Amino acid sequence: MFIEIDFNSDEAIYVQLCNQIIMGIATSQFREGEQLPSVRQLADAIGINMHTVNKAYSILQQEGFVKIDRRRGAIIAIDLNKLAALQEAHDMLSVVLARAMCKGVSRTEIHELIDEIYGEYEA
Amino acid sequence: MFIEIDFNSDEAIYVQLCNQIIMGIATSQFREGEQLPSVRQLADAIGINMHTVNKAYSILQQEGFVKIDRRRGAIIAIDLNKLAALQEAHDMLSVVLARAMCKGVSRTEIHELIDEIYGEYEA
Repeated sequence: MFIEIDFNSDEAIYVQLCNQIIMGIATSQFREGEQLPSVRQLADAIGINMHTVNKAYSILQQEGFVKIDRRRGAIIAIDLNKLAALQEAHDMLSVVLARAMCKGVSRTEIHELIDEIYGEYEA
Repeated sequence: MFIEIDFNSDEAIYVQLCNQIIMGIATSQFREGEQLPSVRQLADAIGINMHTVNKAYSILQQEGFVKIDRRRGAIIAIDLNKLAALQEAHDMLSVVLARAMCKGVSRTEIHELIDEIYGEYEA
């Protein structure tokens, strides 16, 4: 398991942690049913507060990426609500595309970026 | 000027405010050089704290969407750093696509969403 936290980033550490785990699932580094490290293990390994790991895990649970089992801890469990996922993707993409449009990035460049990222994930 | 804030959203109000203004620029509702309402006006109009508007305006300045002029207040001024914009789009899309992939949204569906959103913005 490889988690990379940028302590100089403007992005909160729990957000980075959530994103890294989600990217790990997307790239099949973590699979359905797999156990994530315990809160203490992960906090110690990265050198962050246990509260931060707890916060990330409970957001991942809320958003349907993990389930928290009393004995086994956090387990990858995807809540496959396709309609909600499409709505979320639409809302998030609306923001990303608006930012990009303002800065002169073209529609073609966005489509190219999409294929580039899929290429990275599928590699 | 039309700004819609969802007070029930999980998203912080200053983030919603930034996004709405950026979408306003993308859809040519606001144009380069145009003055945004004063902090007090906008705070009163939406019914939010002046600090929240101030925070949004200064983030928009940091991110190269507005300039703060001592006399005229916040003015739309796009910092056209194309390379930085492409890098930002890549990073933000990486997160959106990972989330979507986990939830079973396909690459084709993402490309379709992109065209759908461009359609909305260009309408």
